Amino acid sequence: MQTRKIVLPESELPRQWYNVMPDMPTPMEPPLHPGTGQPVGPEDLLPIFPMPLIEQEVSQDSYIDIPDEVLEKYLIWRPTPLYRAYTLEKFLQTPARIYYKNEGVSPAGSHKPNTAIAQVYYNKISGTKRITTETGAGQWGSALCFCCSLFGIEAKVYMVKVSFHQKPYRRIMMETWGGQCVASPSTETQAGRSILAQNPESPGSLGIAISEAVEAAVLDKDTKYSLGSVLNHVMMHQTINGLECQKQLAMVGDYPDVIIGCAGGGSNFAGICLPFVRDKINGKDIDIIGVEPTSCPTMTRGPFAYDFGDTVQMTPLLPMHTLGHNFIPEGIHAGGLRYHGMAPIISQLLMSNLIRAEAVPQLETFKAGITFARTEGFISAPETNHAIAMAIREALKAKEEGKEKVILFNWSGHGLVDMAAYEAYLSGKLEDHALADEEIQRALRDIASLPKPKQYRA
Amino acid sequence: MQTRKIVLPESELPRQWYNVMPDMPTPMEPPLHPGTGQPVGPEDLLPIFPMPLIEQEVSQDSYIDIPDEVLEKYLIWRPTPLYRAYTLEKFLQTPARIYYKNEGVSPAGSHKPNTAIAQVYYNKISGTKRITTETGAGQWGSALCFCCSLFGIEAKVYMVKVSFHQKPYRRIMMETWGGQCVASPSTETQAGRSILAQNPESPGSLGIAISEAVEAAVLDKDTKYSLGSVLNHVMMHQTINGLECQKQLAMVGDYPDVIIGCAGGGSNFAGICLPFVRDKINGKDIDIIGVEPTSCPTMTRGPFAYDFGDTVQMTPLLPMHTLGHNFIPEGIHAGGLRYHGMAPIISQLLMSNLIRAEAVPQLETFKAGITFARTEGFISAPETNHAIAMAIREALKAKEEGKEKVILFNWSGHGLVDMAAYEAYLSGKLEDHALADEEIQRALRDIASLPKPKQYRA
Repeated sequence: MQTRKIVLPESELPRQWYNVMPDMPTPMEPPLHPGTGQPVGPEDLLPIFPMPLIEQEVSQDSYIDIPDEVLEKYLIWRPTPLYRAYTLEKFLQTPARIYYKNEGVSPAGSHKPNTAIAQVYYNKISGTKRITTETGAGQWGSALCFCCSLFGIEAKVYMVKVSFHQKPYRRIMMETWGGQCVASPSTETQAGRSILAQNPESPGSLGIAISEAVEAAVLDKDTKYSLGSVLNHVMMHQTINGLECQKQLAMVGDYPDVIIGCAGGGSNFAGICLPFVRDKINGKDIDIIGVEPTSCPTMTRGPFAYDFGDTVQMTPLLPMHTLGHNFIPEGIHAGGLRYHGMAPIISQLLMSNLIRAEAVPQLETFKAGITFARTEGFISAPETNHAIAMAIREALKAKEEGKEKVILFNWSGHGLVDMAAYEAYLSGKLEDHALADEEIQRALRDIASLPKPKQYRA
Repeated sequence: MQTRKIVLPESELPRQWYNVMPDMPTPMEPPLHPGTGQPVGPEDLLPIFPMPLIEQEVSQDSYIDIPDEVLEKYLIWRPTPLYRAYTLEKFLQTPARIYYKNEGVSPAGSHKPNTAIAQVYYNKISGTKRITTETGAGQWGSALCFCCSLFGIEAKVYMVKVSFHQKPYRRIMMETWGGQCVASPSTETQAGRSILAQNPESPGSLGIAISEAVEAAVLDKDTKYSLGSVLNHVMMHQTINGLECQKQLAMVGDYPDVIIGCAGGGSNFAGICLPFVRDKINGKDIDIIGVEPTSCPTMTRGPFAYDFGDTVQMTPLLPMHTLGHNFIPEGIHAGGLRYHGMAPIISQLLMSNLIRAEAVPQLETFKAGITFARTEGFISAPETNHAIAMAIREALKAKEEGKEKVILFNWSGHGLVDMAAYEAYLSGKLEDHALADEEIQRALRDIASLPKPKQYRA
């Protein structure tokens, strides 16, 4: 019998995260204070993040030790199995060897706890009593509540109101772990109240929810704010996954020619690819592909520019691929990929041509998800289906070219709490929409007056 | 760091199932034909089951080889990890060592595919083109559809109408795997039509759904019927789990004093306990506990008697603990434990005092599930919460007695598709109901005229 799951022993769990920043060909452009246009300093961030995370955000150490308390919690579900997709390969009749990393085995069902555990831990040792965050579809909010429950910290999640009502399962997961989840805009914050005053029927948005979560953190000295993607320290925490992949592929004597991850804010893609980016910088020939929806083509159609992380312009300006902070993508089911920006690390690696980006339309992603479920067995999150679609494209290309390529992709989460999306697809209710250039240009006008990155000017 | 997951290498996957029947202190009472009162022969079962499964149903071999094709599919999620519940132990401040087997990592999220894979395989090699089954809450139906998709066999699931509408996620899972799921009673069978003629608003029942699935199998020579619990061959397929546990506990040099599984039809309980029952027969001192809801106390308050497996009296008479085929338990959320009967193997082991049974009320089970989610991280199926509640009782007893007991329980599945149950609990909407003796006596009157088992007469 062929070995299907490559299982890393617990004793081989990586003991350090990898920090790509010192290895990057160009130094990171700093975040800027929107008022002054000057780089943001640690003191600007202290009201919302604990110092150890601020230090990691700007660290120039290539490796950072993972604290024992974090390792111990990682062991609840890590190391995660690396799968050889024999059945999918056979179905596609491809000479490619396809591997996928199963991040769906975590209690929250996705890769998100990789950073939530670390963030909650550093908050705990810094004296934080309560953590606030925002969540859209609920993957991040549930991961944070899960991790807060393990460390005995209160969690408060502002969930975009329309999702709060449409996706009750994620909210109940948060409550099961002892977290508190409120629909945003709420009456609990000034930001929420002002939105409701303008529009009592506001369905909410991620931008509004961020404002509420940040405000709640700023106003209480025992409360901090947590972000599930985009920031440098989040990317670093996620590298535990790619570091495991390197060990697991070595166990079977293989090495990837192609690495694929879906990319919303960039954290799951960063997690699997950054340790391999280091290899690429050191001379390895790897094709590293971030996959986004054609309806939110941040990397493939957005410029590298300074922009706000949120719609209401509260955050520092971040150097990133962006569609403009007012861009509102089509309501696709891959809620985690509907972000207007992209992690600065991923954006800058893209500008340096160390990685590349592809966009796929929604119908192709669900078709890929169905193929995967009926071959490999697992039902994937709508976000994850983007990675699968690209893996299938690459496997078919390898077949055409008659090449024995090795393809690795991140199976970032299961879709068992997203079955409504599959129902919409299976009943023919989904359509692809073309996104006109003018729509993007219109959204980008909002960032025209903002400072420009010093490197990579057009 | 403490090893949390005891992971069996794929090469150590058991290659045989264990069949407890030849080891039992008393021979199995045969199923009886309801018309003649005579033992049912293989030819009576051929219209609905393929011959290899009929042979397994009556086999006297202690071990049966698992075919390579089944082993290969098991490797999608097996061997499953055995967890040491350090955090729960610490929370309970118990000297007991608690282990749980995580059967929730299967694509369907439960132990059910252990037998579905095998049943679909034997159907495949016997020329079956289509398999029918019934499902209540949907765990079994989704497992069967998953496995049918792997072997390219059509699946048709009759799902109890009230669940079909209340639990759409399970239905969509079935469809994602390419299965067909219809609400029962349906207009597709004579059984369904006759029920609808009497009551067009019938909410359906497991009994009606069984009748529809059996009828559809009987009427088409390429179609067979599949049952997810109760029968001897189902219990045997599930032993892959207990056999893995034995190897995993040996890896850490431990052995259980107490083994716990929730019990509806008996298959997940059988799966974890039967290989240890063999040890017990050979002299080991183990307390083996099947846990049922107080609202459906089949083993704790029902007699060992011949009864129909279904409400509409189509099946052979089975020797089992039963509350009578017309017993309708309270609508608890652990839908998988709402069966009036119990597997004959489990029932007879209970009569032989090799295992024992306990009943727990619903509120205690959800309280246990919440404790588990906030310590060990995983959100459990409502059925599984029954096992957790009993494990907690036993761990607290060990604490009282100051004993270093080793407790093993089957974590039979996750609850991510059952979050509505947690919401009902967390919002205080659940209550425990006392079940009056008269209610049970009334239900049992229906079996008074049926034949009696030859052994264990009162």
